[in-house]
This record gives sequence, C-alpha cells and structure tokens, in this order.
Amino acid sequence: MQDHIRIRDLPARAGESVTVRGWVMTTRFSGKIGFVVLRDGTGYLQMVISKSEAGQALWETVRQLTQETSVAASGSIRADARSPAGVELALADLQVIGPSADFPITPKEHGTSFLFEHRHLWLRSRRQVAILKVRHEVEQAIRDYYHREGFYLVDSPILTAAQGEAGGMFETEYFDLGKAYLAQTGQLYVEAAAAALGKVYCFGPTFRAEKSKTRRHLTEFWMCEPEVAWYDSNDNMRLQEDFVSYVVGRTLERRREELKELERDTSTLERVTPPFHRISYNDAVAKLKALGGNIEWGQDLGGDEETQLASQFDKPVFVFNYPKEVKAFYMKRNPDDPRTVLNNDCLAPEGYGEIIGGSQREDDYDILLSRIREEKLPEEAYGWYLDLRRYGTFVHSGFGLGLERTVGWICGTPHIREVIAFPRMMHRLWP
Amino acid sequence: MQDHIRIRDLPARAGESVTVRGWVMTTRFSGKIGFVVLRDGTGYLQMVISKSEAGQALWETVRQLTQETSVAASGSIRADARSPAGVELALADLQVIGPSADFPITPKEHGTSFLFEHRHLWLRSRRQVAILKVRHEVEQAIRDYYHREGFYLVDSPILTAAQGEAGGMFETEYFDLGKAYLAQTGQLYVEAAAAALGKVYCFGPTFRAEKSKTRRHLTEFWMCEPEVAWYDSNDNMRLQEDFVSYVVGRTLERRREELKELERDTSTLERVTPPFHRISYNDAVAKLKALGGNIEWGQDLGGDEETQLASQFDKPVFVFNYPKEVKAFYMKRNPDDPRTVLNNDCLAPEGYGEIIGGSQREDDYDILLSRIREEKLPEEAYGWYLDLRRYGTFVHSGFGLGLERTVGWICGTPHIREVIAFPRMMHRLWP
Repeated sequence: MQDHIRIRDLPARAGESVTVRGWVMTTRFSGKIGFVVLRDGTGYLQMVISKSEAGQALWETVRQLTQETSVAASGSIRADARSPAGVELALADLQVIGPSADFPITPKEHGTSFLFEHRHLWLRSRRQVAILKVRHEVEQAIRDYYHREGFYLVDSPILTAAQGEAGGMFETEYFDLGKAYLAQTGQLYVEAAAAALGKVYCFGPTFRAEKSKTRRHLTEFWMCEPEVAWYDSNDNMRLQEDFVSYVVGRTLERRREELKELERDTSTLERVTPPFHRISYNDAVAKLKALGGNIEWGQDLGGDEETQLASQFDKPVFVFNYPKEVKAFYMKRNPDDPRTVLNNDCLAPEGYGEIIGGSQREDDYDILLSRIREEKLPEEAYGWYLDLRRYGTFVHSGFGLGLERTVGWICGTPHIREVIAFPRMMHRLWP
Repeated sequence: MQDHIRIRDLPARAGESVTVRGWVMTTRFSGKIGFVVLRDGTGYLQMVISKSEAGQALWETVRQLTQETSVAASGSIRADARSPAGVELALADLQVIGPSADFPITPKEHGTSFLFEHRHLWLRSRRQVAILKVRHEVEQAIRDYYHREGFYLVDSPILTAAQGEAGGMFETEYFDLGKAYLAQTGQLYVEAAAAALGKVYCFGPTFRAEKSKTRRHLTEFWMCEPEVAWYDSNDNMRLQEDFVSYVVGRTLERRREELKELERDTSTLERVTPPFHRISYNDAVAKLKALGGNIEWGQDLGGDEETQLASQFDKPVFVFNYPKEVKAFYMKRNPDDPRTVLNNDCLAPEGYGEIIGGSQREDDYDILLSRIREEKLPEEAYGWYLDLRRYGTFVHSGFGLGLERTVGWICGTPHIREVIAFPRMMHRLWP
C-alpha cells in the first residue's frame, strides 16, 4: 500500500523535493557547510546544508541538533555516488519533532552490561540494525523454503503437561490442572502432525531453565523443527543440507550490505552448498583421538570437541549415529549397530558448533516403550506419543535448527545474545 | 529437493507405475472389485483392485485393511475425472507397514471431549486437515505480506519482568530475578523496534491466564502485531484493511478446495476488499441504541453488541475512537475529543466479532507518564518504555490481529479451539 516516503525510496526520486522523517545520527560542520546523517530504519541519508543559502533560523536549528532527535526534513534529492544511499538531500527545511538530550548510547565504547540495560535504545545503532535485518531475512527464508517445499506449518504448544523431563523447564500453575511446563521442543507434536499432513514444521520460541552462561545459550530462543513422514536418517540429512544452504545463500544474496556493515568475511559462507561433509560418530572419536583429544567411545562431544572437529572441514559437517546413551529415547535404534541411534548433529564451521540436532524417530511400539521404561519416564504421559506407533506407524525423521546459533554464525557474532532483539539469560529479564 | 512420491504429484504421472505410502481411510468392496482410499497429507487417492486380476494373497491383504493402517501401495496411475485427485491407482501390490486395530476416531459421531482427548489422532481427519492447511496459508500470507511491504520481523520476548498488569498472566520463577510473566503482547517491544527499523512486526504465541470459557478464547494463541513509525490512526486503519484483504483473498485463491471441504460459504469472504466500513464509537453507541440496545456512552462494547453492530455491515467494520476509560493507557489521546483515544477495533462479519485491536500510541512523554500514574502502574517498570518518548519521540501506530479468530472466521468454525493443532484452554493442557 501507499506509504510515507522512506530513505530507501529516495534513489528513485532524484531531482524531486521531498519530506523525510527520521532520527539524527550525527552532525558535522565544516565552515559554512553542515552535514546531518539521518536514519529511519530503511537506510541512512546524508543531508547537506549551506549556511549562506539556508536562513539563519534553519542553520541554528541544525547546529543544535542532538543525537536521536526526531525530525521532518525537507529538500531536494540529488544523486551522489559517494553517499551510501546513492543520493543526498539538500536541506531546505527541518522541523524538530522530538528532542533528544543526552542519548545514552554514544559513538564511544560502552560496557556490555550497560548496552543490554539500554537494549531498547541500543537497537537503533548501525550494527544492531544490520543484525536484526539479517535475522529477519533468515526467518523469512526459512518460511519461504518450507512453503515452497510443500511443508505445512503446525504451531506446537508452549504450555505442556508434565512429560517427565529431568528438570530444566520453567513451570507455572495452570488453573486446576496442576503445573504446566514451557516446552523445550515441539517435536513430539509435529510427529503427530506429520501423520496428518506428511511434511510439517513448527517454528517458535522454546525455553530452557538452565543455569548456562556460555556464549551459545539463551533461556528463550527460537527453533525451527521440520518433521517428515517417510524420511529416513539419510533423507533427513539431505533435507538439512539443502535447507541450510538455501538460507545461507539467500542471506548472502539479499543482505550483502548488512554483512558488510558487520565486517563479516563471507568467503566461508559462500562455500555452504550441498553436500555437507559426513562423519560417523565412530570416525569422529578416532579423528579426535588422533588430534590428541582424550575422548572415549560412548561420551558425548563437548563444545570444544565440536569446534576442533568442525575446524577440520571447510563447510558444515554432519556427525551421525551417536551412542544411544548420550541421545534422547525417541531416536531410532541403528539396526546395523544397536549401540547407536540413527541421528545426526550438524556442526557449523569457524567454531560456531552445533546448529542442528536431528534423527530418525523410533517407529517400533515395543522398542519405544522399552526405551521409555529404561529412561524411567512416566508411561502414561507418553500414551498419546505411543499411539503414533500403535495406529499406522511410519518411518519418519526430523530435526531442530537453533535460530540464534544460525544467525550468530551467519553474522559472525561472538555471542548469540546479540542476535535477538530482547535476549533472555540467567541474569537478564529486562527490558 | 527430490522427495518421495506424494499423492499430489500423481496427476503428472498418469500412465506410470509408482509406489505411494500413506494411511488407509476407507475400504469398500463391490463383488470382485475393491476400493481403498489412501491419504498422505498431500491428498486423497482412490486405489482400485480387481479380485480376478490380483492374486489371492493381495486380495486378502486388502480385504483385511483397517482404518489408519499405513501401507506402501504400488500400481499404475490412470486418469479418472470422477476421482478427487483426478487420477486413481490400479493396485498391483500392497505392503502393510504399520497395522492399526480399533482406531478411536471412526466415521461415526464423537463427543467434543473425546475428540480433544484424541487430538493427536483426530488431526488426521479430512476436516482437521483442511483447517490446518487454511491456517498454514493464512500464516504464510501474513509473513509474505509484511515481507513484501518492507516490514522487519522482530521477535518479542515471551518471558517478561513484571509490568504491573492487573492479573491474567501466567507466572514462573526466574532464577534469582524473582517472577517472570508470560507476555500477553509484544507491543511495547515492537514500539522500541519501530524506532530502530521503521516498519516492524512480531508474530508469535501470547498468553492469557483467564478463566474464560467462551468459544472465542484460548489461554495460548498466536497474535500478529505490526508497528509503524510515522503512521497515525488513519494510516493504521488503511494498513489493516489492506492486510486483512490480502490474507483473505490469497486464502480464497489458494485454499478453495479446503474451504469447500469445510463447506464454507465464501460469498461474504469475496467481499473483503478495501475500504472497510468505518463507524465512530459515538455513532456505534447511537446505532446500538436505535437497534434497541441498552448500552450507554462510556461502556465498552460486549461480544453481543459487537455481533449486532457487525451484522449491520456486509464486510469488516472499524469502530474507532473509544472512551479512554475502557482502553489501554498507551493509546493516544484524541486531540479533538480528549474523552476518547485514537484507537480502533476491527469486527469481522457473520458474528465472528473482534479480530483486531489497534491504536495510535501516546507519543507525549508527560501525558503518557500521567496516564501511567492514573492507572497506578509502576513507573520504574515503564522506564524503558517512557525512554521512547524521551529520545526522539515519534508518531506511531500499530495493532494486534488474533490469528485463531481470523482463521476461525475464514474457515467458518463455531469455536476457535478447532483452528489450532493442540489448543490450550482452562480445562485442557493435554495432549
């Protein structure tokens, strides 16, 4: 629909007189010429004022502009190859809409804690705007990919009855039904939906009440979880590499400007195309040992081991078929080696570690029931989940992609807390 | 990427021999001919078997198929104008993958409570599949609309610190920070983001811990909340009518088959085009009085009044500028009548009632602060929200569209609990 004029529209309006509204980023004066950089979320515009041509009042108004003052600026648009927007505005008038005294986030360095305390204002800075735009593109690319591939979106519930998870969940009183828990995953629900719709995914917030303080953990984060009827573990990995490659490729294509703003070296991202590398857990352990690690068969890979392993490859790598003891009860037993399951993790290069965990699901009623009993999970809570194996059981597989880890990798940010607008961590619940 | 053969791919494969996997819906035998209807989430396929041509073993296997047995069926595809898929499959082989004895959801009538207890299986029925596909289309249409219109998606947090809301929120212990609350809205957060990015929206689950048992309430539902810098209340209504019309029009275009399955009379939906009707709150009260209602100026419109009012119009209607006492503190005071605010609700026709609530936001620091004090809200909790008026305040507006109410209206379902895969209500937290 018809919108107000935004900065990104201006290149098409060279020669016209326009009024643009936005916020002042910087002012600079060189003798009788002044420069004001305006931002409005769609771009950055340099505005130029000449003291001799502007009236005294306008010159004074511009002289006194402070950071983040909101203004309506009028003038003519002229092409300017040197400016980031490709055009600049010759200021003819400027109205202050909202003054801004002592904006807390200045061009100088601030401490991390201070910045997160002022997250609602920090979001306005160039780097944060660039990150948010990359995140937006990644999320839309995810939606578009699954829509194009014939998946149906099925929103899984956040509030769930107890399913016997061993801690790590936020809980709340739920009317007369006792406690409800904030879901850590939508997987069990999309498995049910896959039997109805074939190819499905959920994509929403998930929660971990864990006291993790690493650079790769949030208490609230978004996860995309596809689930496909009739896919085995191998199909599942093919889907993952196709999907991740699409998302990375599209972001490179459409957000080059933002990645440049973030000073991201995109050469490793350019290499993200199918097929990804594949290494079995068995071989991964052998390789880590050869590299001097002291991991033993049967242990899970830690963050450091993931980093070390991934650094051996120039693009993402699948590590598949882990020992069943270190993975979830619902993963399909590997018929060729029952000590292991038909699962995979996907490790991003450059030290970003696991971005995906996936598996073929156990589709045998008796084996699944025995796994539930082995893990001492409450059978009755899993009654409905077992029903999926009781009525027309089916080979199926799926995975979960952590959005913030993926965006953090694409943006090249050291800590994932920066890639979500209002991060939630053990010590942060505000603003 | 290359997928297994699905039922929706079959019209392009007439004449070929294929193997399709799915679930048996019904079997029917007429002398020496048998008919099996298979579903796989992408469509419905009639499979035909002739006793004389099939071997005895295959005939017996097919005779014994039960509802929701999963099978791999092979045979040749032939065009059949009478069948819903446009083709049928001449059965040459059939392997049972997962048996299904006594599937609980049979073609006979079941009580609502029974159906929701078996929601994980009920989802497989034709009507539920159709509803889920309409919901998927509506959600993708929402994403596509905002992406096309240059909005950035900004995910707002679910876990929030206390902001003084008067009850109605689920709460949870949050480490050493005391209680966290499950957000009822992302609005305050997208207002902050609008100052960074101009045009933004959030779209995720929201929560109400209210003991409502109406057909229009869930404790967990999805809400789409756009927020636009420099939009006034009038721009806001233009955006709403353009947006809703796009979503309805696209669903009509792409989900005609599902709407037919739902026996939806689409004639009223066809009329959903801009502009929508507009009536001020003042005029709405007068009209309701003329219709015999006993509403008085200053009272909010109840569900029945909304229905009565909306029934006067043949497409959605905006009711605008309500008394400030019945609306939230953050709505912009109407300069032409300070008893009212610059807000609007959007009422769907056919008795579906409010699908949108929106407003221009109070952008004056002092007025907003005095409203916070009038409502006895804790000032310090709104410190960051007030900051948006302290540093470059700006005219801005936004709204929230309730996804389930919108999908319920488009599908023509009497209760919104049916339009979400796993509904959460006062008495329902499972499966």
